Amino acid sequence: MTNRGEKASGEDSLIARYFKPLANDPGAFGLDDDAAALRAGGGDDIVITTDAIVEGVHFLPDDPPATLARKALRVNLSDLAAKGAVPAGFVLTLALRGADDAWLKPFAQALGEDAAQFGCPLLGGDTVSTPGPVMVSITAFGRLPQGKMIHRSGARAGDRVVVTGTIGDAALGLNLLRAGPVASALADDNTGREMLTGRYRVPQPRNALAKAVRDHASAAMDVSDGLAGDLAKLCAASAVSAVIDVQSIPLSAPAAVLVARKVVGIEALISGGDDYEILCAIPGDRMAAFVQEAKRAGVAVTAIGGIIAGSAPPSFLDAQGRELALKQLSYSHF
Amino acid sequence: MTNRGEKASGEDSLIARYFKPLANDPGAFGLDDDAAALRAGGGDDIVITTDAIVEGVHFLPDDPPATLARKALRVNLSDLAAKGAVPAGFVLTLALRGADDAWLKPFAQALGEDAAQFGCPLLGGDTVSTPGPVMVSITAFGRLPQGKMIHRSGARAGDRVVVTGTIGDAALGLNLLRAGPVASALADDNTGREMLTGRYRVPQPRNALAKAVRDHASAAMDVSDGLAGDLAKLCAASAVSAVIDVQSIPLSAPAAVLVARKVVGIEALISGGDDYEILCAIPGDRMAAFVQEAKRAGVAVTAIGGIIAGSAPPSFLDAQGRELALKQLSYSHF
Repeated sequence: MTNRGEKASGEDSLIARYFKPLANDPGAFGLDDDAAALRAGGGDDIVITTDAIVEGVHFLPDDPPATLARKALRVNLSDLAAKGAVPAGFVLTLALRGADDAWLKPFAQALGEDAAQFGCPLLGGDTVSTPGPVMVSITAFGRLPQGKMIHRSGARAGDRVVVTGTIGDAALGLNLLRAGPVASALADDNTGREMLTGRYRVPQPRNALAKAVRDHASAAMDVSDGLAGDLAKLCAASAVSAVIDVQSIPLSAPAAVLVARKVVGIEALISGGDDYEILCAIPGDRMAAFVQEAKRAGVAVTAIGGIIAGSAPPSFLDAQGRELALKQLSYSHF
Repeated sequence: MTNRGEKASGEDSLIARYFKPLANDPGAFGLDDDAAALRAGGGDDIVITTDAIVEGVHFLPDDPPATLARKALRVNLSDLAAKGAVPAGFVLTLALRGADDAWLKPFAQALGEDAAQFGCPLLGGDTVSTPGPVMVSITAFGRLPQGKMIHRSGARAGDRVVVTGTIGDAALGLNLLRAGPVASALADDNTGREMLTGRYRVPQPRNALAKAVRDHASAAMDVSDGLAGDLAKLCAASAVSAVIDVQSIPLSAPAAVLVARKVVGIEALISGGDDYEILCAIPGDRMAAFVQEAKRAGVAVTAIGGIIAGSAPPSFLDAQGRELALKQLSYSHF
């Protein structure tokens, strides 16, 4: 763990105290060196993904440090899962306004718990001071057999479009945390509120499904910017289009209630973000095997439509077969 | 290149325009996917290093984007060199307040030039918006034969302490850019001013020396936080001490003049930072071969002292054999 700009008594001891216990992989060298080493198994590819989360942009200033740590790691684990890779480790860059034990302790503890749970050890990192918002940047590594990474490209006309879990919960959770209409609609529903904010703060990456994705998907990515926008990207990369049956998009119980009560439109759920579910295209003759493996892995999967030929943006059709007008496909920074 | 929170018309096209041309490695998949792949040669280890630079902390707000790009990559290349690894690629996380062509164009161009020069292609990344300071975080990868990474630990009593290049120039360059005493002392010396600011803004990583380090050094690291502090770290990791002959520490011509004119003390140079030279311990019987290989590689190396037994902090002795009193060993963030 390089710590450029440290005091032996300051940042070094802080890192030793909180992050060394997490660095239990031999390639981390106990964070005592300037670099880590990843042993590549014979013929494996190392899959690399990097995602940063910024205070006020990807998380709220009052999000607990523990959920923040989990989210920072899990958004990367989600990418590895969607690519069909098995987690191998990660490096962490932490930009903080200062070294605060009350913040670092729960952050490091939660990070360590997730690293252990997902078999993805801390290998190294960098801590820097910033006068600005807290930023957590993680680069995560996965392993898979040579050339077996699943791409956004590869979907073909006739493939089924499949998503894991439920869609839109995180967008609702964010609306709730920002005291939007969802907050008042669920004022008396503690369980629903907790479920939705939990989905926003702590994604559930579908790493248990990685092997099934690798074995059966023609294309895959994780849903991070909203289902509609991410499906458009997958289709563009694959030079195909898609037709989605909006009724079949899997919703959680609270989300379904909010849609039924017209607190939110389904459009907001499919163009929201932070779902961290897997979106993939599965050839028809692979569906049965894929669904069976997903069941064994304990991951809910739902077919929501099909890939068709063409270059038009994907269509989202309602129960009457009318196309949904989506004002925006996904959230944008710039 | 994941771009969570983008608009197809905004961040995507921006990334396509500026960064796709840099992603010429097959494992980058043209930045069209959520992850990159690094093929590990049979039995190689992948060395991983990560370093972030923050506006106002590691670089100045008016540093040109081109030098900023080079610095962000080179501080990581410097780590790879010191560990004895050959560059294999890098991922980039860019936190920006907005997408500004006038900033991105020179940034990407310089980054591409350095990536080509050092054989370290862009593999992927993440661009995020921030309301705060610009931050460039790079995770770089290198290859070396299994188990051959050179560590901070491993130095033994009797080894020579060797540094590459010259020490303290970057600290002087920073002083100059901040209109410190160096600026007035060099008011009439354009060449000297340019040389020193150049050393601060654009480090010269010693990747040409990586193989010699790997073949001969018992311990190595790059000097990023100041020679004194970094040597103390190397000694601590190796459970040894060191005696340094201050007179033999290599200085550039402008630095030597500034010390002779007492504009700065030698203490400031050896506890400054941003040198990005290699500091290593070379066993006596390897010195001749190491020096010869360094010469072939075109990298200046200088023996500045020796490793001794003990656990005391390294001593820096002046011409009279008196120990220098160092107020601080290196710069600290916290």
